[in-house]
Amino acid sequence: MNKQDKILIIGAGLCGSLLALRLAQRGYKIELYESRPDLRKVDISAGRSINLALSDRGLKALRLCGMEKKAKEISIPMYGRFMHDKEGNTFESNYSGREGEYINSISRGDLNAILLDEAEKHENVNIHFNSSCENVDIENTIAHFKDYKSKRKFFVKADVIFGADGAGSALRKSYISERKFLFSYSQNYLNHGYKELEIPADNSGNHQISKSHLHIWPRGDFMLIALPNLDGSFTVTLFLSYNEGEYNFENLTTTEKINEFFEKEFPDALALIPNIKKEFSQNPTGALGTVKCSPWSYLNKTLLIGDAAHAIVPFYGQGMNASFEDVFVFDEILNQELSDWKSVFKAYEKARKKDTDAIADLAIDNFYEMRDHVANPLFKEKRKIEMDLEKTFPNQYFSKYSLVTFNENIVYNEAMKRGRAQDKALLNLIVDDEVHTHLNMTKEELRSILDKVIHETDKILQEDKIAGL
Amino acid sequence: MNKQDKILIIGAGLCGSLLALRLAQRGYKIELYESRPDLRKVDISAGRSINLALSDRGLKALRLCGMEKKAKEISIPMYGRFMHDKEGNTFESNYSGREGEYINSISRGDLNAILLDEAEKHENVNIHFNSSCENVDIENTIAHFKDYKSKRKFFVKADVIFGADGAGSALRKSYISERKFLFSYSQNYLNHGYKELEIPADNSGNHQISKSHLHIWPRGDFMLIALPNLDGSFTVTLFLSYNEGEYNFENLTTTEKINEFFEKEFPDALALIPNIKKEFSQNPTGALGTVKCSPWSYLNKTLLIGDAAHAIVPFYGQGMNASFEDVFVFDEILNQELSDWKSVFKAYEKARKKDTDAIADLAIDNFYEMRDHVANPLFKEKRKIEMDLEKTFPNQYFSKYSLVTFNENIVYNEAMKRGRAQDKALLNLIVDDEVHTHLNMTKEELRSILDKVIHETDKILQEDKIAGL
Repeated sequence: MNKQDKILIIGAGLCGSLLALRLAQRGYKIELYESRPDLRKVDISAGRSINLALSDRGLKALRLCGMEKKAKEISIPMYGRFMHDKEGNTFESNYSGREGEYINSISRGDLNAILLDEAEKHENVNIHFNSSCENVDIENTIAHFKDYKSKRKFFVKADVIFGADGAGSALRKSYISERKFLFSYSQNYLNHGYKELEIPADNSGNHQISKSHLHIWPRGDFMLIALPNLDGSFTVTLFLSYNEGEYNFENLTTTEKINEFFEKEFPDALALIPNIKKEFSQNPTGALGTVKCSPWSYLNKTLLIGDAAHAIVPFYGQGMNASFEDVFVFDEILNQELSDWKSVFKAYEKARKKDTDAIADLAIDNFYEMRDHVANPLFKEKRKIEMDLEKTFPNQYFSKYSLVTFNENIVYNEAMKRGRAQDKALLNLIVDDEVHTHLNMTKEELRSILDKVIHETDKILQEDKIAGL
Repeated sequence: MNKQDKILIIGAGLCGSLLALRLAQRGYKIELYESRPDLRKVDISAGRSINLALSDRGLKALRLCGMEKKAKEISIPMYGRFMHDKEGNTFESNYSGREGEYINSISRGDLNAILLDEAEKHENVNIHFNSSCENVDIENTIAHFKDYKSKRKFFVKADVIFGADGAGSALRKSYISERKFLFSYSQNYLNHGYKELEIPADNSGNHQISKSHLHIWPRGDFMLIALPNLDGSFTVTLFLSYNEGEYNFENLTTTEKINEFFEKEFPDALALIPNIKKEFSQNPTGALGTVKCSPWSYLNKTLLIGDAAHAIVPFYGQGMNASFEDVFVFDEILNQELSDWKSVFKAYEKARKKDTDAIADLAIDNFYEMRDHVANPLFKEKRKIEMDLEKTFPNQYFSKYSLVTFNENIVYNEAMKRGRAQDKALLNLIVDDEVHTHLNMTKEELRSILDKVIHETDKILQEDKIAGL
């Protein structure tokens, strides 16, 4: 915990850059290593998660580091979902009934760039690109690298090593291979992969569909989504099974079949994606995996953070937000002024692990919700009631989505427990005909629904607690 | 699916031996490889899971192979739990209110031996000991071995390879390292380890405590259990945290401290374990891990089965039973006469995976139940009611324990869902003062309780279903 400690951070992606910045602001000496070239000089993002949804938990961490304003300047607000059915009919569904609650579409590369710019302003930060970490000698805190250009191998000795090196973390792999302790670890893949496509801007450089929404084409077993970019384009992502159903990534191998699939399922989107043939064949098909593990740290030597500790599927738009919140929580632990890194690492995992487990599970839930439930009449009635409740009782009702996305002071695990119980209560009240919705609900009617939902939610939480003894 | 196919089974433990026997009975040609020496000639079991609980799912599979009677001959029936508190007070709790429902303590080695004896009677089975599988070339179905004695390496080519090689499966490791497909995989350790001790027979060769029970010394954060052996001894197992609490495996390093711990927590047991000093220091501390993975098979070439596919913690006494049931379910799939091994493997995993996931989760539940809940007054009242219900309505009420242990025709996943809902219903009925128990319940009183439990259970299951949309 000496400010003279040499701190090595592996990975200058979103989490690693923000962590480097924050630790530099606190006065630590940081060596930041990144496997790829400097993304501010080379375009390296094609076909992979070009834009992301930035929301309140991420903003909270950016604010801590003085970066909120700069991030918002390069963001596009999305106020809700914009659903497209097969016939081209559309309907909107807000993310919140409250004013001022929205998520932000932001370019991964642009955000990463402003974080690197800011980190570099600190003379106690050195950034090294093209340095791919191959493994870490965790006992001696030595990281082994390979230079991307010269292929030369080298190593760096540090006092403390942070692995912010993403879902394929080299530090995490070293935890597994070195077998110094019992390491609980899981990698779970969905049977769906994803592929990115593009809706370009129109001739005037404007967005061709509403840029104030996250667009969804839900089709039960698969779906298409689109997020707006600043240049008027949309990044479109197809989520589809590798090998199940009539159409899947394994059998969509010819232009005819790809066209047939899009003509049948997404005709309105197809009309907006001129380069579908090239993009479908050239962009990679990405896997959708969840990684959980524990412990995150080894003694007073190393710590996993961000995706390296908890990679999640993208369906709650919380991957980046969770990683940024990691930095926020880690900073809070540092404020406790514990005596050594080991205590800091343990306190951090104790405070954080249940929450990153929760958002991983919530993200899987939302996969089913987005591709399937959003078009379900029961689900739609529930969302209608929730929007009315949030609008009418902005300080008393928060949907699961709001709890997770807009209530950055409620930890993920609490948001999950309360949100799931509330969803269960409301769905069952609707099915049991205990609550009804119509176009113009009076405040008294809504008050009565709110009371029932709160009562049933508390009952469910209480019964679950008793069942757990 | 040709009877002339060369089938290689890695692992001649309980699952591999039974699988070899069953496939031999069906006329297949089997090469069975085992890393250890022939356990019928060498004693190799010291300090590790000496005895196990055999129950109805295991017996069902043994029956299929004509081995039930022989197994029962070397079993000791255990009718319930026998709890010991710190003051030496005891109370019993039956596993079932029905006649003839009990579990069986059996020696792992003895059972393995009779399975090997039976398998060897088939001329289409060849057993090779001292052959440790190092890895499998899954594309070419070649298993690489090392001879335990000569250290010579050799390989075996087969048409189909079954990995019945336990929690540390070499075949499963090859799935991970060969990266031919997206392999979902998890290994999760409890923070508790285990150590085996022994209560020897008395001078006349008799059991010193009731041999008709599984003994438990529940202490909240840790516990001791004991299962009877045929020779009058008990195998005792201590489950204790590695590094948490006042006493743990990391700090129990001196004879004084070990004695102090047992004197304070288990004085009655300590008096029965004369060699505690030697056993505590010499027997290994085992880890308690759960392994889940998917897919279990690769094309028409390889399949994981038993612990290799799904290692679980021992707290439901279902590890061996689940592995034996694997063989039963696999045999049922073979009865469908599908066209090729790939179809068989896929159908088998589709039929089986949700059930092995369920028993893994149930086993974790039971860890908390055994070390903690069994001594809880609310839990005890629930068990009392359940015993009365099972006794009075033997065809209408089945506790979760009965569903899992004695109802071999109800799959684990159904037993888990129904059992958990039923526990939740009953616990909440007790807390809400909707049901009461007293010494001599009339049939009418019990009937009324039964009706309430069934009603509440169905309601819980229905509400869960709606919440899942």
